[in-house]
Amino acid sequence: MQLDQIDHVAIAVHDLDAAIEYYQQAFGSEVAHREIVERDGVEEALISVGESYIQLTTGTRPDSPISIFLDRNGEGIHHIGYRVKNCAEAIKAVVAAGSKAIDEVPRPGSRGTTVAFIHPKGALGTLIELVEDPSE
Amino acid sequence: MQLDQIDHVAIAVHDLDAAIEYYQQAFGSEVAHREIVERDGVEEALISVGESYIQLTTGTRPDSPISIFLDRNGEGIHHIGYRVKNCAEAIKAVVAAGSKAIDEVPRPGSRGTTVAFIHPKGALGTLIELVEDPSE
Repeated sequence: MQLDQIDHVAIAVHDLDAAIEYYQQAFGSEVAHREIVERDGVEEALISVGESYIQLTTGTRPDSPISIFLDRNGEGIHHIGYRVKNCAEAIKAVVAAGSKAIDEVPRPGSRGTTVAFIHPKGALGTLIELVEDPSE
Repeated sequence: MQLDQIDHVAIAVHDLDAAIEYYQQAFGSEVAHREIVERDGVEEALISVGESYIQLTTGTRPDSPISIFLDRNGEGIHHIGYRVKNCAEAIKAVVAAGSKAIDEVPRPGSRGTTVAFIHPKGALGTLIELVEDPSE
């Protein structure tokens, strides 16, 4: 088990278009991919930064985890995604090391990925997503 | 102005050795660099993840910003560092786009870098560090 890259850092934002415009104006960054993920109640825009992405993400309904996070905390960094070769093996290894899986069995993520989340308790207070990208 | 890479994601931790051990056990990761930065009151360990680092960081004195963050929030993601070619030009461009600089003039960072921080207010609630690494 090895972390190949930082796949993405997710930033929760109130207004996705305004957030995209901020990254364009401040950093000259462009959107590589934009997607509504109905299952998770989010709309996300991926900004390419080298081999990684900044995932600007907002809620599409009031009860989605991102909307609840925004209500409680306001805008800010929500989670970090690590790219791994095999998500199913990786989540097993992380659980064996004493962490708690939110997804013990990997599930579909955005842009055709397979993902599994690790609970921040037992992971240095950090919500971590393991991301297997078949296009890599 | 362009963001070259995610240079690092900084995670504030209470116990640096325990945090390093967690990343070793859960992800098979090793420490690439460890440094005490007296000026900032922090000790940090850099874990290589592809072209980026996870910066595990703890306070070395009670009044350092990381110690204050840990007292208020507990462990968790503290900031994100973007690698840029020219830190002085980059911070000017970001200020011109309406953000507030914490460091209007770049200053020395760890491992021989030159850095400047952007205030989270006006930057999607995200504390951002611009990092110029002369070894890149």
